[in-house]
Amino acid sequence: MTIITDMVKFIRNSPFEVLPGNICEVNKASMIDCVGVTLSGSKTREADAIERYLKRRPSCKEAVVIGRGWQCDMSGSALINGTMAHAEDFDDCGRGGHLAAVLVPAALSPAVYYHRSGKEFMRALVLANEVQSKIALFAANEMMLSGWHSTSVLGVLGATAAAGILSDLNDEEFINALGLASTRASGLMVHFGTMSKPYHVGMAASAGIECVLLAKAGLTASPEAIEGFNGYTQALANKRPGEGDINFGEPWVIDQCGLYIKRYPTCSASHTAQDALKEIIEENKLFWEDITEITVGVPQYTEHCLIHPDPQDAVQARFSMPFAMAVTAVKGQVRLCSFDESTLWDKDVRTMMKKVRTVLAPEFSHSVFIENEPAIVTLRTKEGTIHKKRVDYAVGCSLKNPMPREALMEKFIDCAVKCMDKEKARSLFLTLENITEVVDMAEAAKLLL
Amino acid sequence: MTIITDMVKFIRNSPFEVLPGNICEVNKASMIDCVGVTLSGSKTREADAIERYLKRRPSCKEAVVIGRGWQCDMSGSALINGTMAHAEDFDDCGRGGHLAAVLVPAALSPAVYYHRSGKEFMRALVLANEVQSKIALFAANEMMLSGWHSTSVLGVLGATAAAGILSDLNDEEFINALGLASTRASGLMVHFGTMSKPYHVGMAASAGIECVLLAKAGLTASPEAIEGFNGYTQALANKRPGEGDINFGEPWVIDQCGLYIKRYPTCSASHTAQDALKEIIEENKLFWEDITEITVGVPQYTEHCLIHPDPQDAVQARFSMPFAMAVTAVKGQVRLCSFDESTLWDKDVRTMMKKVRTVLAPEFSHSVFIENEPAIVTLRTKEGTIHKKRVDYAVGCSLKNPMPREALMEKFIDCAVKCMDKEKARSLFLTLENITEVVDMAEAAKLLL
Repeated sequence: MTIITDMVKFIRNSPFEVLPGNICEVNKASMIDCVGVTLSGSKTREADAIERYLKRRPSCKEAVVIGRGWQCDMSGSALINGTMAHAEDFDDCGRGGHLAAVLVPAALSPAVYYHRSGKEFMRALVLANEVQSKIALFAANEMMLSGWHSTSVLGVLGATAAAGILSDLNDEEFINALGLASTRASGLMVHFGTMSKPYHVGMAASAGIECVLLAKAGLTASPEAIEGFNGYTQALANKRPGEGDINFGEPWVIDQCGLYIKRYPTCSASHTAQDALKEIIEENKLFWEDITEITVGVPQYTEHCLIHPDPQDAVQARFSMPFAMAVTAVKGQVRLCSFDESTLWDKDVRTMMKKVRTVLAPEFSHSVFIENEPAIVTLRTKEGTIHKKRVDYAVGCSLKNPMPREALMEKFIDCAVKCMDKEKARSLFLTLENITEVVDMAEAAKLLL
Repeated sequence: MTIITDMVKFIRNSPFEVLPGNICEVNKASMIDCVGVTLSGSKTREADAIERYLKRRPSCKEAVVIGRGWQCDMSGSALINGTMAHAEDFDDCGRGGHLAAVLVPAALSPAVYYHRSGKEFMRALVLANEVQSKIALFAANEMMLSGWHSTSVLGVLGATAAAGILSDLNDEEFINALGLASTRASGLMVHFGTMSKPYHVGMAASAGIECVLLAKAGLTASPEAIEGFNGYTQALANKRPGEGDINFGEPWVIDQCGLYIKRYPTCSASHTAQDALKEIIEENKLFWEDITEITVGVPQYTEHCLIHPDPQDAVQARFSMPFAMAVTAVKGQVRLCSFDESTLWDKDVRTMMKKVRTVLAPEFSHSVFIENEPAIVTLRTKEGTIHKKRVDYAVGCSLKNPMPREALMEKFIDCAVKCMDKEKARSLFLTLENITEVVDMAEAAKLLL
């Protein structure tokens, strides 16, 4: 037995019926969220560039290009959908990086091409998430320290698993496909801040499709590719798993580590503070004019992330605590539209920003890196009343503070209205919520064009 | 200045006219050799698999598929030509791995598509070889120790350089293309012995084409991708170059390290012994029946490579000193046809094999790894005469023992006759020898179909 043969065995032994209900629910929310952010990401320059690239070659109508009204071959569809899903960095995170942005496009293309059911589509997502995340548990930290973009180097394994599940591979072909995936793993963190970062996601998703098709065409690879000498974990993480170090299924990674769906389109380091401020304002029915001071206590890590106290453009604004706090106070919540020039330079927002201070909270001083990025917001009103709220886990952490259905729908519609009217967006949300009732994903996917 | 901007500057400042003549000659021999082994490799199961993969998607007649009589898009053409070039492991080696097998397919596709001249094609090969090899000089050893297949992780940089030179990129696009190449670098040594090894070569060549097309479509990447924090050399070799560590051009890597063209289709560790035996036999006009004993003195490294004293199939026969010696004695030279069942089990060859002994030569004991893989052959005849010959550098080492034109042509024809008759093969050799006279590579490439 090798890790890859174990993976295939786990997949073969896991029909939809035996998948834990809560794991399916978390994956479904993540899938819905991914479709939403992809619709929003379809209106970016990254999407334009990949479309120009794809349209120069002949193609066929195998799968859909979300939000852009055309179809192309499976690999091309995974490439552009994956890139769009991560174009605004508004997609979910799991163990070892972003997950749905790679897995959903990689599963959607074969689900459409082979006319799979919604249940089969969801099964592919659930199992691919688990196998990829178990490798991540073992090696993601070391990969990132070396400079590898974990989202793509791990993602290609998950993408291949997802596409393979939906593509009628025999065991030998599936093992070869996953071996090929290991040898397609690439993506460097040096490219963060360029269009290559979202491209990495599309690259991993389309590589997954290609590995499946190459294996189907008869290409072979080593079944010891993950743990073997000169193999995947050695090259990418400088360590090799021993017997029993990596086991798929019980306990599922989502039960151990959760999955985080972003509520706000900003750097996640500011999310707990936004939750805290939103709650204080809503509970006390405050108006922004009543607020004289907002102090945000954070761990050092958060301060290192949010480096733009006085943002001059939309990108900087995503990494600004004063901007996030001021928009929350003045507009109720940071949304995709908050990065328009009008909000960025809104007089009230700019006035409010001057009243925000970020400080290191002694409560969080024990660690440079705190995974959940907690915050303590202290707010003073004109009357001198002081409100204080600590949030340890932002809304969206599936384990500790799951995203309420209403918030998920609200975010989805916010994203989807870039491509369709509100009514259609709401109806699409409901269709996706009932994905396991879908008989033919090719029919359902037409709603995404 | 970054390493990538340096690369582009070096390329811009190097028109064909300033390229050193000897460097061009070595690259031309390597190109001719690559076309030959690709023609031979076009009759392998690797070629069949990649053709099945490519033919399932629609394509266009942008570039040629060598030896198989059809055309497809540039990326697909580079994928299959690259895989075929390395399918029999009979292609050349340079600093940090095989070079021509990646570079020739990556250059050929755009040369055909854009109707470039033979001079432009050769310029792309010469410059791509140099920039890739300079990165290899800095990092190839560490890459291989980590498990990376240097041929592909370095090759994608050279492939992108070659394709970029022939594709009318502006400086910004060229820098983005090379940045993208860094983030496409993949390929693990764990797959040696499977069809993925030759696939790595096609993968790197086609990734080079894709990086150029993506950059042309507007995708951006970091110009500090090679040396930057979390960049290419850090992730792949755990080291980062300082100012001045990597300089392109004078002294050219080919002048420093040479390039090795394989004369025999066996593991290169047996090549010096084959040269020595061939010379002894030819100089002394010996018949194999006269030989009672052949002793081959080798360094330890050679013994580690040639692990099949009694080969049972064609793959094992490539790693067998007794088989190589016996075929040389009985048939005059190991050729592609020597791995047919008839030669593999030839009674005379098997008789001769029993008279071959491999021993560790004390002359070579100072090092486990000797790059040039020397050998001392001692031959005893029936009459009791002893002939002894030491060869330090096999025929084909461009610096120490370059391949004579006749040997290159002989190998080329041996390879090419799998696809065409001898006369056509000879005429193709002459066309390639005069490549710089070719006005339109699209016309010349028709001879390769």
